[in-house]
Amino acid sequence: MNRLNEITATEVVKKIKTEQVTAEAVMRDCLDRIAEREATIKAWAYLNREQALKAAVEIDRGEKSTPLAGLPVGIKDVLDTSDMPTEMGSPIYNEWQPKVDAACVGVMRAAGAIIMGKTVTCEFAGSYPGPTANPANPEHTPGGSSSGSAAAVADRMVHVAFGTQTGGSVLRPASFCGIFGYKPTYNVINRSGLLFASENLDTIGLMARSVDDIDLVSSVLLNRPVVPPAKEIAHPRIGLVKTHLWPEASSETRFAVEDSARKLSNAGAEIIDIRMPETFEDHTRIRNLLNDFERSRVLSWHSRNHREKMSDKILQQVDNGLTIPWDEYHSALLRAEDGRAMMDTIFKPLDFILTPAASGEAPKTLRDTGDARLQGYWTILHVPTMTVPTHTGPNELPVGIQLVCPRWQDNRLISWCKWVSKILIN
Amino acid sequence: MNRLNEITATEVVKKIKTEQVTAEAVMRDCLDRIAEREATIKAWAYLNREQALKAAVEIDRGEKSTPLAGLPVGIKDVLDTSDMPTEMGSPIYNEWQPKVDAACVGVMRAAGAIIMGKTVTCEFAGSYPGPTANPANPEHTPGGSSSGSAAAVADRMVHVAFGTQTGGSVLRPASFCGIFGYKPTYNVINRSGLLFASENLDTIGLMARSVDDIDLVSSVLLNRPVVPPAKEIAHPRIGLVKTHLWPEASSETRFAVEDSARKLSNAGAEIIDIRMPETFEDHTRIRNLLNDFERSRVLSWHSRNHREKMSDKILQQVDNGLTIPWDEYHSALLRAEDGRAMMDTIFKPLDFILTPAASGEAPKTLRDTGDARLQGYWTILHVPTMTVPTHTGPNELPVGIQLVCPRWQDNRLISWCKWVSKILIN
Repeated sequence: MNRLNEITATEVVKKIKTEQVTAEAVMRDCLDRIAEREATIKAWAYLNREQALKAAVEIDRGEKSTPLAGLPVGIKDVLDTSDMPTEMGSPIYNEWQPKVDAACVGVMRAAGAIIMGKTVTCEFAGSYPGPTANPANPEHTPGGSSSGSAAAVADRMVHVAFGTQTGGSVLRPASFCGIFGYKPTYNVINRSGLLFASENLDTIGLMARSVDDIDLVSSVLLNRPVVPPAKEIAHPRIGLVKTHLWPEASSETRFAVEDSARKLSNAGAEIIDIRMPETFEDHTRIRNLLNDFERSRVLSWHSRNHREKMSDKILQQVDNGLTIPWDEYHSALLRAEDGRAMMDTIFKPLDFILTPAASGEAPKTLRDTGDARLQGYWTILHVPTMTVPTHTGPNELPVGIQLVCPRWQDNRLISWCKWVSKILIN
Repeated sequence: MNRLNEITATEVVKKIKTEQVTAEAVMRDCLDRIAEREATIKAWAYLNREQALKAAVEIDRGEKSTPLAGLPVGIKDVLDTSDMPTEMGSPIYNEWQPKVDAACVGVMRAAGAIIMGKTVTCEFAGSYPGPTANPANPEHTPGGSSSGSAAAVADRMVHVAFGTQTGGSVLRPASFCGIFGYKPTYNVINRSGLLFASENLDTIGLMARSVDDIDLVSSVLLNRPVVPPAKEIAHPRIGLVKTHLWPEASSETRFAVEDSARKLSNAGAEIIDIRMPETFEDHTRIRNLLNDFERSRVLSWHSRNHREKMSDKILQQVDNGLTIPWDEYHSALLRAEDGRAMMDTIFKPLDFILTPAASGEAPKTLRDTGDARLQGYWTILHVPTMTVPTHTGPNELPVGIQLVCPRWQDNRLISWCKWVSKILIN
């Protein structure tokens, strides 16, 4: 039998509710796994064994009628927690203790979930990495900026974790670590208590080892029913989007996408090659511009008072952001809005889009979290996206694919991810 | 000669820059005014005389090359300040000291402005009032939720103050207190460090005693040039929008709008009666729904841990918000988006819209901040709006008008406000 840290969130919740297992037993297995592996993986920015166990024992003493009773959850360390420090991946916030829970944290607690600890984030959810290693091979990056959340879930230290995505910070680490990573439609999960990077892009997302787990947690956050299980037989029209970045993607990424298309076609899908508007080739530039302009405001106090505690990388973004004239920023916002409107047309003949998740396997370095362009391309469009862990590359490291649906069609995305997972994973 | 607290922000900045006056002298006049009046007005949630003077002296010792060197500014107490408590109008946050400045606060400091103190807000920028009184008559409400900002600026305690608007929290208090109140296009002023009410509506705005002051501060926040001065002669096409709420507005509000239309027509404007889509009559309901759904997430931790410290009013909103199914919330979001798209068509033949700002003079009560519907009608459309203090009602209390421009056309709004002010005020 699997240890309780290894089963899915959906199973954990069911077993606790029907009193087959205690929340304490689940938590002990998670903590034991962490004790074994944390020295190598370094996924946690804050974790207090006694505090986590105490919370589990309290759940066991209570009613367990809440929808997530006893489920351990990891929280990216840019989201405020009322009972744990929140350090934003920056020494400026060393041991900083917020007053209240971020909205998503509070809602999870109200649903009976146990906030287990805080997971390592890149500095200010940017690109300057923390210490976390990839569980599949600790010499490789787990991706970023939700590094700790991806590594902890992939390494079976915790069942579900929150991430945030401004460029590719949920999808890329999920793809690198071999788990599901979900970036909802922009702004679907309430962002109160999140330190912003770029407010017009920042989206709170989820990482888990099954699409059902992502569905379950989303249903609680949004007060909606879970999405019905995937159909056995379906004939979706899948838009295959290679983007202008295709030639730069590794052979393992290109294989993962084409092999998935082939298998889904064999299962009944119609694969339609889609050429995206040429203007979208500008997404990387526009996204960086929005990011720098907005970060320079968010980090105005920090960069004036604590320059010595900030990485050169983020200081460059802040300093650049301060030089951008309003007109240029405003044009970028409008370009992004135009792109969003175009997506509705592009999606008309399609059920969903299949596209690369990341440029390849996780690079062999802990000093760089990889290339965000293949995720940022979609983030700026505010569409919901999910990476599904379908393949393995030449170094035995995970390679995911990315599925995309129109804005607000998160349920449709989850539904098709269930179908795709059945065909490509099980 | 006027005392230095009485002149405009634009004049203050110019006089300090050219060393006609010191920042300290400006601050002393502001503090003296506060000493005279604060027992009656109660505009400030936090103010430390020594701290404010020290900041002014530091500006006098420095270079004064920054664009707002020495300008005193009031900050609504839902925006974080690194060196002052931030209490959100709630005893839950009693003496709470945030770590960092909100983005807009940090940017103002970088520009040389002096963060003078924190102004009273309704509980969580909602509708449960703080102690502030209307400077024009202290038995009347100053409006809310940016009550302290409006009262402090109107009473000449400070030159400029930040407010936030989710329903009518900038425009209504500005109209009630007889000053300019500006709610930009949604999300134009970076919201990092703001405790959200309803993230899809919350907009940071400005209060001042001249449109030039609003323009000056905006130009710094957004890194854009100031808008050129108003033309002497112009022939704008003004859409006169009475809305379905017109019959419920007081006679002084109706007079203010019609009298303004008449005078602007005499000055060369073409006045065009505009009937808004009937679907917009649903804006109050939709806005309340978004507000309750989102507040219930933001205040999830608060309402589970500190119910006894929350007003019945806000608890009702939170409890209601938790019952709203996702589908209903999502429909409301889409309805709001549809409305925004329709506005572009409505605005095509128009330069700007003229419409009531508030239902009338400030009501004679300190227990209720007045009716938010005439402001919330526009807030949900994400359009930039400004109230201009043009009239006085039967009780000698201020009555403003409201001008509206299309989304992103904030400069156009400011430009026409300059023209309108010249005609209707000077």
